[in-house]
Amino acid sequence: MSDELKQTATDKHPGWTGAYYNEGSGPDGIFDKLKEECGVFGVYGHSEAAALSYYGLHALQHRGEESAGICASDGGSAFNYHRGMGLVKEVFTNDIMETLKGSITIGHVRYSTAGESKLANAQPLVFKYRGGDLAIATNGNITNAPEIRAELEALGSIFQTTSDTEVIAHLIARSDETDVVQALKNALNRLVGGFVFLIMTNDRMFVAADPHGLRPLVIGKLGDAYVFASETCAFETVGAQYVRDIEPGELLVLDANGLREDRYIEKKRRAICSMEYIYFARPDSDINSVNLHSSRKRMGQQLALESFVDADIVTGVPDSSISAAIGFAEQTGIPYELGLIKNKYTGRTFIQPSQELREKGVKMKLSAVRKVVEGKRVVMIDDSIVRGTTSLRIVNLLREAGATEVHVRISSPPFKNPCFYGIDTPDRKELIASAKTVEEIRQAINADSLYFLTQEGLMEAVGGNEDEKNRGMCFACFDNDYPTVLPEDAKLGCGC
Amino acid sequence: MSDELKQTATDKHPGWTGAYYNEGSGPDGIFDKLKEECGVFGVYGHSEAAALSYYGLHALQHRGEESAGICASDGGSAFNYHRGMGLVKEVFTNDIMETLKGSITIGHVRYSTAGESKLANAQPLVFKYRGGDLAIATNGNITNAPEIRAELEALGSIFQTTSDTEVIAHLIARSDETDVVQALKNALNRLVGGFVFLIMTNDRMFVAADPHGLRPLVIGKLGDAYVFASETCAFETVGAQYVRDIEPGELLVLDANGLREDRYIEKKRRAICSMEYIYFARPDSDINSVNLHSSRKRMGQQLALESFVDADIVTGVPDSSISAAIGFAEQTGIPYELGLIKNKYTGRTFIQPSQELREKGVKMKLSAVRKVVEGKRVVMIDDSIVRGTTSLRIVNLLREAGATEVHVRISSPPFKNPCFYGIDTPDRKELIASAKTVEEIRQAINADSLYFLTQEGLMEAVGGNEDEKNRGMCFACFDNDYPTVLPEDAKLGCGC
Amino acid sequence: MSDELKQTATDKHPGWTGAYYNEGSGPDGIFDKLKEECGVFGVYGHSEAAALSYYGLHALQHRGEESAGICASDGGSAFNYHRGMGLVKEVFTNDIMETLKGSITIGHVRYSTAGESKLANAQPLVFKYRGGDLAIATNGNITNAPEIRAELEALGSIFQTTSDTEVIAHLIARSDETDVVQALKNALNRLVGGFVFLIMTNDRMFVAADPHGLRPLVIGKLGDAYVFASETCAFETVGAQYVRDIEPGELLVLDANGLREDRYIEKKRRAICSMEYIYFARPDSDINSVNLHSSRKRMGQQLALESFVDADIVTGVPDSSISAAIGFAEQTGIPYELGLIKNKYTGRTFIQPSQELREKGVKMKLSAVRKVVEGKRVVMIDDSIVRGTTSLRIVNLLREAGATEVHVRISSPPFKNPCFYGIDTPDRKELIASAKTVEEIRQAINADSLYFLTQEGLMEAVGGNEDEKNRGMCFACFDNDYPTVLPEDAKLGCGC
Amino acid sequence: MSDELKQTATDKHPGWTGAYYNEGSGPDGIFDKLKEECGVFGVYGHSEAAALSYYGLHALQHRGEESAGICASDGGSAFNYHRGMGLVKEVFTNDIMETLKGSITIGHVRYSTAGESKLANAQPLVFKYRGGDLAIATNGNITNAPEIRAELEALGSIFQTTSDTEVIAHLIARSDETDVVQALKNALNRLVGGFVFLIMTNDRMFVAADPHGLRPLVIGKLGDAYVFASETCAFETVGAQYVRDIEPGELLVLDANGLREDRYIEKKRRAICSMEYIYFARPDSDINSVNLHSSRKRMGQQLALESFVDADIVTGVPDSSISAAIGFAEQTGIPYELGLIKNKYTGRTFIQPSQELREKGVKMKLSAVRKVVEGKRVVMIDDSIVRGTTSLRIVNLLREAGATEVHVRISSPPFKNPCFYGIDTPDRKELIASAKTVEEIRQAINADSLYFLTQEGLMEAVGGNEDEKNRGMCFACFDNDYPTVLPEDAKLGCGC
Repeated sequence: MSDELKQTATDKHPGWTGAYYNEGSGPDGIFDKLKEECGVFGVYGHSEAAALSYYGLHALQHRGEESAGICASDGGSAFNYHRGMGLVKEVFTNDIMETLKGSITIGHVRYSTAGESKLANAQPLVFKYRGGDLAIATNGNITNAPEIRAELEALGSIFQTTSDTEVIAHLIARSDETDVVQALKNALNRLVGGFVFLIMTNDRMFVAADPHGLRPLVIGKLGDAYVFASETCAFETVGAQYVRDIEPGELLVLDANGLREDRYIEKKRRAICSMEYIYFARPDSDINSVNLHSSRKRMGQQLALESFVDADIVTGVPDSSISAAIGFAEQTGIPYELGLIKNKYTGRTFIQPSQELREKGVKMKLSAVRKVVEGKRVVMIDDSIVRGTTSLRIVNLLREAGATEVHVRISSPPFKNPCFYGIDTPDRKELIASAKTVEEIRQAINADSLYFLTQEGLMEAVGGNEDEKNRGMCFACFDNDYPTVLPEDAKLGCGC
Repeated sequence: MSDELKQTATDKHPGWTGAYYNEGSGPDGIFDKLKEECGVFGVYGHSEAAALSYYGLHALQHRGEESAGICASDGGSAFNYHRGMGLVKEVFTNDIMETLKGSITIGHVRYSTAGESKLANAQPLVFKYRGGDLAIATNGNITNAPEIRAELEALGSIFQTTSDTEVIAHLIARSDETDVVQALKNALNRLVGGFVFLIMTNDRMFVAADPHGLRPLVIGKLGDAYVFASETCAFETVGAQYVRDIEPGELLVLDANGLREDRYIEKKRRAICSMEYIYFARPDSDINSVNLHSSRKRMGQQLALESFVDADIVTGVPDSSISAAIGFAEQTGIPYELGLIKNKYTGRTFIQPSQELREKGVKMKLSAVRKVVEGKRVVMIDDSIVRGTTSLRIVNLLREAGATEVHVRISSPPFKNPCFYGIDTPDRKELIASAKTVEEIRQAINADSLYFLTQEGLMEAVGGNEDEKNRGMCFACFDNDYPTVLPEDAKLGCGC
Repeated sequence: MSDELKQTATDKHPGWTGAYYNEGSGPDGIFDKLKEECGVFGVYGHSEAAALSYYGLHALQHRGEESAGICASDGGSAFNYHRGMGLVKEVFTNDIMETLKGSITIGHVRYSTAGESKLANAQPLVFKYRGGDLAIATNGNITNAPEIRAELEALGSIFQTTSDTEVIAHLIARSDETDVVQALKNALNRLVGGFVFLIMTNDRMFVAADPHGLRPLVIGKLGDAYVFASETCAFETVGAQYVRDIEPGELLVLDANGLREDRYIEKKRRAICSMEYIYFARPDSDINSVNLHSSRKRMGQQLALESFVDADIVTGVPDSSISAAIGFAEQTGIPYELGLIKNKYTGRTFIQPSQELREKGVKMKLSAVRKVVEGKRVVMIDDSIVRGTTSLRIVNLLREAGATEVHVRISSPPFKNPCFYGIDTPDRKELIASAKTVEEIRQAINADSLYFLTQEGLMEAVGGNEDEKNRGMCFACFDNDYPTVLPEDAKLGCGC
Repeated sequence: MSDELKQTATDKHPGWTGAYYNEGSGPDGIFDKLKEECGVFGVYGHSEAAALSYYGLHALQHRGEESAGICASDGGSAFNYHRGMGLVKEVFTNDIMETLKGSITIGHVRYSTAGESKLANAQPLVFKYRGGDLAIATNGNITNAPEIRAELEALGSIFQTTSDTEVIAHLIARSDETDVVQALKNALNRLVGGFVFLIMTNDRMFVAADPHGLRPLVIGKLGDAYVFASETCAFETVGAQYVRDIEPGELLVLDANGLREDRYIEKKRRAICSMEYIYFARPDSDINSVNLHSSRKRMGQQLALESFVDADIVTGVPDSSISAAIGFAEQTGIPYELGLIKNKYTGRTFIQPSQELREKGVKMKLSAVRKVVEGKRVVMIDDSIVRGTTSLRIVNLLREAGATEVHVRISSPPFKNPCFYGIDTPDRKELIASAKTVEEIRQAINADSLYFLTQEGLMEAVGGNEDEKNRGMCFACFDNDYPTVLPEDAKLGCGC
């Protein structure tokens, strides 16, 4: 085997111990937010593919701050790739960028909950098999991965990661099909869940989405090259032209003949994740041609229509709820103010062991602006409530800063059900809206009033048309209507 | 002092070469913004003084991203201190924090223009002299430092930094006074300029401001301890109670007997830097009890009153002009929209040498939101125009994204004169407003219309009362009325 | 899959570029020495197994400076492991050591030629298969690995490394045997080559050697625990008692019942690598109870007997030829002197691009001692000649320092044939002794005389007894008598 | 000066805590050796001066492993310099080397005892004074520095380091002389102690030695350029021609007119440090044209003549006593063997807190070779005994490895008195030879016999000629005859 995978790797934070604030999700995090699990970016046919990937992944950094990776092929017999723990700008130095030669690249940024950070799971995953080299980057979750993995292990497969993504590589490698496209189609047909895949061989690229199109992916052109990204904001950064969103069940094949549109399964009803509209995607991105800032502003306006409250100021929880708060303010005429501020120097920071200083540590991340909220009746807009602990903390910050009333308005329905399609959510029993009524939640978060946007209001705000009702979204976390069959042992969250 | 010691140091970024975008000022930076030069934070009498300093400096990080330092005294015969290049969270690891024992600390964060970063100049500066140990942290500039330095050198003094701050240490050490307070008073009386000083010995602390109070500093209490910070936002973070702003010409002495209020010179007219109100200070900070978000929002409202223009949307240049933009929108009823977005993952990033990719690199930092601005008449609010290059770039971004008209409104008067009191400004000849009329500037930045807030409007917005006219601000950069005598060879910018 | 492999990784040298001297082999290296490929160290049943592994691997560091790894099991459902590029002391920090909990460990140090350094190939390799977790550390080479790999790929196996070692994991995972011991025996019987394996599961350890025992491994005890190491020097460091060397074809099984001695194949004639005696192993190690310093000193004495030359001083090429040089000096009565000195601060160093300074750069590594050799007839002892370039360089160093004659004596026969059993040798055509006569080599290296130890003299020096002739060594690199069948496409060198 | 500034810095080893073995001196070190304090290397008039300095300092690395620095001048108005904690090869990356432009350089490597490592004290020290820039690198100690420092502080000088070297900069800067050469002469005349100085201004270099020539410095030429080094081994590395050793009291002036030989004081009796001959200098260096390997070998021969003992093998404590051991073996005919081995991978290593593993940790550094010493009567040669703890530990290692007798022979007289001229020695009360007889020491180190070389034997071995008796060495540590007046509060050790 004379062809070698030229891998290198970095870990920017080898010395990090537990004594730091993690901003991540979970009860120990300061911001109890849902975490997206991964962003992908691919280029086919550009001489500076790796540099474009760097820019594109940097634009998608909010979808994954834990690790980053780029795999490139110059058409030769081995990939050039690098993966590392940390931000894109930390992982990819000049020296490393110079090694990533080739006109075909796939790249990945990955989120992870604290303690499970693993360089071994960083993507793109790279394999050697009888057909040559194979690299895979994914966003989403395969709910039947445990079943397929058990089946493969029984056949003698060995695994090096805990990532679902490794499953599809085995399915391709073990296929009886000699044509890799057919092998890939067969493999994709085995999978249940919500996912997009960027897959590359030494000279081809494949792009696929699950049958319901649960996770976002957009197709663009840059000169003669094709580019693919989780969100359109990455196209703006690299200067690519948006072409269209991927279709559910689609399989795109890119080779020397250009792009061929194909599919591995009949399209089922579109069910793109509604939390992408509400919270995850960057406000300057569009999904199915709907801009997310505008969409969120309309959610705020709708919220105002549904639940007006007399108050002195409106404030949003930064950064994700600013658009909705501005919409709410515009609709009601109540002034929008900067009542809460988030320190822009994010990332892990030192904390003192003592409880007193731990509490101060929270304020390093988020604080209320006393002069703005003192003596005021405040409408506080947030995008969702997961466990409720964060909301309570923020309401209390506002009260300590002198707010006389705090009215909480949430720009989405109550979050009651866990996600199986790529979002890292806690168990149902930890979801406050699953167990408590709205009034009980109001008490738990110490608010004067609390209102959640209705599902109808949400749909209206996103802007559903008649032909494609609800813009074909998945609302399972609100209404328990999961678009796929769920195995009993279905994996929660993200399988990247 | 044009000759500089070109020291480099083993810092956080040893591999960085020129092939990175610097977000800094100057013609090579993407954001041609003025740079504040330094923030200070001091604690007297708290058992966890270093941890508080860490939190406080992190809150003041926007005032200096280049280096950070903390010096602590446990009352013994030697200081415990650490300085390093990078952000507070990068410079201070757990291991280092453990070494910073003591109940008295002064801390510093420092800005610097690219290429002049020097660990040797990082503060606090620490000296040994006949009286023991001396540490100094400062914000501002001593305009007659070259003169004093020349005088000291003639007497045989040697210098290890190019920092003005070293001058005051020599003046104290060479004083005939046996009482350090009197020696310090004499030294301060030699200085001309705008500055605040935090000075510590093994068991005392001194806090001083220039006779006009050009640079901000606030006094707070945390239990029995005293805390001092460049801005009140740091008090919010550490949980301290704001007491008052420092007075021009004041000298505070802290020792075992507590805090003693003294002064080294008669107070002159207060002339606090107006750019702190317009741009520098964090929006959740207060100066002289005026909140800066509110103040900036009023600037936007005032701007709307002075220069209404019919348009479809209002957008602000992030992050500093958001408050003014919201004020403008509220006043005019034109919707506030997110027309420009800044990537929140700041810091240096890799760039490709090719010109085409360099241009894309700009969009990694700031981009226009096509869906929001396309086909719209846009009011773009910014806080100031320095060279004009950045404004041109942003106007063009908006036009390329489809804006049909771009009306630029600036929430301050034309910036015509360089600063000698701690702000790093270019030479007068590089200041576009110094050479061009408003109409010429409009053409240069490719705007459909351009308007600068009047000085009267600015004063009104800040909220001057009668007793203390104009809140006692320095407007020299607008009106050339410098509050101090300026030596012919006065040092521009920042002397930290 | 709730059990996760808790892997972390470090790369100490992410920024290294080509502009450094590599001391490694190959035409660009300064010291054109053969490189051992790997050392292994295992512990079964000790509460501080990871710390012992650290000490043991540090003692074996000369066998591999490129990467280091330790995998530990605490009997639970997942391994704790870490691998990184660099020396043992660089890869394993305190923080990382604390994570390596468990009483069973295998560890590895790895050599690699420049440019092929790959974290992905760093050992121990860790896998998940139907039987649980599997980790493997190896020293040696599987000559039929390409054939087995092709066969496995045809069956649909995917590979993540280019390491031969991955082959054995697949063979075990695909076995029809339910008993892992039998599966392992079957797998080992498929392999041809020279190798030792340390293999661990969640609660067991296996130790195996090839049928000829080509690579060294020793068995020891430390209290109730068992330890395994490539060389006895590691036992001295951890305080373990040497028990015996492993037997060819042996398979040791360690589990809750202790150590069970088994074998997977009949023992064939022992053929341990003679270069271990001549050059690789540390002088304080023993192989089959023969101390290597003593053995090498006897080689020097034997050399003196075979090829006396009248001279003023004897000097050895440091560090590996010191023992032989002392033996030569003792035998002849010619004084042993320090005519050549190697800088003890090894590792990569900066070099200037200019040719003149490149040459000086060589002297940063090795220099002749002018005062010692000036005007002297020098006998220079070295252990082997590979390409001849190094010998020429050293002879010239001595001449430039004033040596009047340089007589080269080599403590091994001419090195004519490449190794297929774990030593990284160049192609046959690059081996100077393969193409040239001794006289031609003498001219090529600019020596006054040249002599190679005879194969009989070498055997005599090692101290073969009658029962086990020649101590059962492999001399293939000298006499072309390879102990195993060699496939046509047999992999050269090292397969770790 | 007992009060020290406890500065830490962002250095190469930020994560190191106490839980590592330090190989340094002191009761906690494994090797209780004396530590040299500093090596210097200077270049005047070579276009690649910085690269030469890198090579030269790397060759002098054994004189200081703690920090390294190079200052360069290209004749312009500011120096280019860099200092850092760590080895030369760690501190100077390619990027940094590129910044060190100029044809005049001085460089420095520095030793330090654990806990006092300070980047602030790293040399060359660099100052600005009325005459321009000034950089200083030194080796040695100024015994009256505390007195001068107190005097300067009384005059108002401030200090940034605890280094004696800063004193001379102040003396120059405060001089009334307008001619810097005369100012320097006056300053040097104030100093008492043992030292060499390399001093540079923007276009000149000065080289000076104390009146007794206590510390070594050699002068060489490389083409038209002049080079200066603590030892000749650095000349061999850079390819320079040795010219001569510096003379006591000499002052060399280098400027555009070349080298001018001058002196600032009458030469007093030469008294170069005898420990340089015995232990410190590299064996391939020459002092006053005496090669140190040869000199040490003669010490071993002399020791054999003075104290023959019947034994089976001779072994030296590596690395410093190998030459003496070979001399002893040659003289007696007892075979020289490798009875002790030092791990060549030096530097700090992880240790386990438990006492049992701590002891094993020692063996990571040095171990006895069982097969070599078992059942043997061993002569163990060492160069000196400081506290005795190390000797006891090594004797015990030999006994545990089976030595039946251990006869210790020391190649220098008993070390009874502390050094005030640049060597870091413990207080007199910690010096075992100060308090105990030879017989008592023998018992304390558990030896069967013990002998120290006589002072006459040492002189004989070094090779004193008649004209310059004893080669003009300082033997104060043996015979209490200090060549200079010693102030009551004279600083011990090293003042760099």
